[in-house]
Amino acid sequence: MNTEHLKRDLALVRAQSPLVHNITNYVAMNFSANALLAIGASPVMAHAVEEMDDMVSIASALVINIGTLDAEWVRGMLRAGRAAHRLGKPIVLDPVGAGATPYRTQTAWEIIRECQPTIIRGNASEIMALVNSDIKSKGVDSSQSSDDAVEAARQLAQSTGAVVVISGATDYITDGTRTETVTYGSPLMTRVTAMGCTASSMVGAFAGINPDPFEASLHAMMVMGICGERAVAKNDSPGSLMINFLDELYEF
Amino acid sequence: MNTEHLKRDLALVRAQSPLVHNITNYVAMNFSANALLAIGASPVMAHAVEEMDDMVSIASALVINIGTLDAEWVRGMLRAGRAAHRLGKPIVLDPVGAGATPYRTQTAWEIIRECQPTIIRGNASEIMALVNSDIKSKGVDSSQSSDDAVEAARQLAQSTGAVVVISGATDYITDGTRTETVTYGSPLMTRVTAMGCTASSMVGAFAGINPDPFEASLHAMMVMGICGERAVAKNDSPGSLMINFLDELYEF
Amino acid sequence: MNTEHLKRDLALVRAQSPLVHNITNYVAMNFSANALLAIGASPVMAHAVEEMDDMVSIASALVINIGTLDAEWVRGMLRAGRAAHRLGKPIVLDPVGAGATPYRTQTAWEIIRECQPTIIRGNASEIMALVNSDIKSKGVDSSQSSDDAVEAARQLAQSTGAVVVISGATDYITDGTRTETVTYGSPLMTRVTAMGCTASSMVGAFAGINPDPFEASLHAMMVMGICGERAVAKNDSPGSLMINFLDELYEF
Repeated sequence: MNTEHLKRDLALVRAQSPLVHNITNYVAMNFSANALLAIGASPVMAHAVEEMDDMVSIASALVINIGTLDAEWVRGMLRAGRAAHRLGKPIVLDPVGAGATPYRTQTAWEIIRECQPTIIRGNASEIMALVNSDIKSKGVDSSQSSDDAVEAARQLAQSTGAVVVISGATDYITDGTRTETVTYGSPLMTRVTAMGCTASSMVGAFAGINPDPFEASLHAMMVMGICGERAVAKNDSPGSLMINFLDELYEF
Repeated sequence: MNTEHLKRDLALVRAQSPLVHNITNYVAMNFSANALLAIGASPVMAHAVEEMDDMVSIASALVINIGTLDAEWVRGMLRAGRAAHRLGKPIVLDPVGAGATPYRTQTAWEIIRECQPTIIRGNASEIMALVNSDIKSKGVDSSQSSDDAVEAARQLAQSTGAVVVISGATDYITDGTRTETVTYGSPLMTRVTAMGCTASSMVGAFAGINPDPFEASLHAMMVMGICGERAVAKNDSPGSLMINFLDELYEF
Repeated sequence: MNTEHLKRDLALVRAQSPLVHNITNYVAMNFSANALLAIGASPVMAHAVEEMDDMVSIASALVINIGTLDAEWVRGMLRAGRAAHRLGKPIVLDPVGAGATPYRTQTAWEIIRECQPTIIRGNASEIMALVNSDIKSKGVDSSQSSDDAVEAARQLAQSTGAVVVISGATDYITDGTRTETVTYGSPLMTRVTAMGCTASSMVGAFAGINPDPFEASLHAMMVMGICGERAVAKNDSPGSLMINFLDELYEF
């Protein structure tokens, strides 16, 4: 982990203000948009099939998050993902709740096959469920430790060609060969909804300015962890964390 | 009202972290998810017909809130509600805006008939509109005092078999025979959107660990009121209330 | 600009608590609802075609915001807009992302033609894109200065009969003949998502109690700017701004 590279990328996000096109869930939209604005990126939320090709064409990165999926939204996700793949734009997939229902696991795989995401970021349960269909997620919160998901992440990276990020007490970033860890952060972050989804959007912001998806993922997870830690140091309750986290992103 | 029982249930929520499946409105989703996480429960928001049976099967409670309903979402609500009824899982119905438009009143009744909710929680206007079609709601805010809705709540409880909760300056919880009141809270809570919706989700969390829907409702309303009161004591403006309320739930 | 008139209108909002029917985007819903509650108005979010006529009939103003549009929602917007026009209720259109994709520009124009909005509020890029199809927006953030959009705003006002509001470092309000400016506010407000959308909802609140759309727009933009400025004076980071802004609206 190279702090100079992180500083360089942070400066690039602020200078270029990459347009991050998010097709994300209703719970996360406001917080993820605010986090992207706070770090210096430019978020747009759009899902209609009618405008996916146009929106992707002006975006620097596409983030697909299946947290509150339905058939119509999946159509938009696939349309956008195919366009981004065709145009060579980075795609981040957040397979929220994979393993909780077959519909989520199958949709995540449909997106992987059709759109070939550059980066897949999930919690331990979600990443494990994509590799081993016996793993069950309890809703959208992880029931597994990230340490136990590293092998699954490596397999997923190898079979899909994506960089895979597991977030947890320790975050793991792997391309199937190299694996890096980030140990910043606080357990209290799991008590604020959409922190994981926002990590995926943050990965999108850094992938929008850094062509290396491995380093972009690493930098995004460092920013999330460091700002989370600083926010918890100010006030260790979850409502305050949500607000202080946005302030820390801005002041970083 | 028994403080020992409240403490026991609060400990159970934190130990078991019940999965609360919310089909709720877009306005409330983020705040309700954060409130459930802050109290120790595990929220999931999901509405697609394709995954309703699977999601309900792993949930401890289902919360149906019609705040931003449309035909497609109502299909998901009915599918989930029937599954929950079949599996004997507690169902909380929040008939947001019943009485404001015929579509809302009719949809609330369709859900009551088809899914037989365990608990119905609304403001005074909404509960009265479900009993007396002459009552008109002004949008989603109550135009009636909760005191005037008690008789309607008793009738609704008797005709549906549900525990009925009216929230207001005084909260009333009734099963048609017994009636309990909760007088905690602050008028400022009506100036923060989704407080009522979040009360319904909180009822879902307690119903997920306490098989007695009357006591579960009572405990949820006590937690809402006490934490609201404490948050207002810290700062009596609505933006701060929203954040401090989440902190108080966590610290309770 | 007349401070006595602003005070009068603010008192009217608080006394009458106008019901503002918002068909707005998922990102803005919670924040806009909270801002309307904080200033004293009564928000309702509803989009289903089935209830548009009924909801509009009890509302004091309709706000149509295309931020996360799709075909089904556009149907609801058009249905509501036609009903509001028929009933002579004020309509505010926020053409979010006009110029970013043809779908957005075309939908904005379809709403203008079919519903004849009373007020159109956008950022500089959006207003310019409605007048000159060569202008491209970068997502939903403005790439133009509001000063450069004044002529486009005047043209748009003249061709549509609407009052046109450009928000930016300087806000401009024009009916095609008269033009007023508001210079309150802070650049930091662009780092909080949905501030513009919330300005449109605020315009709806004031249009709900003041029959003069020019003055209503002016008062709403003054309230937004003054409260934004005061909130930034308390804490100049964006998470805190979001919360302090709501507090300032309430305390104004």
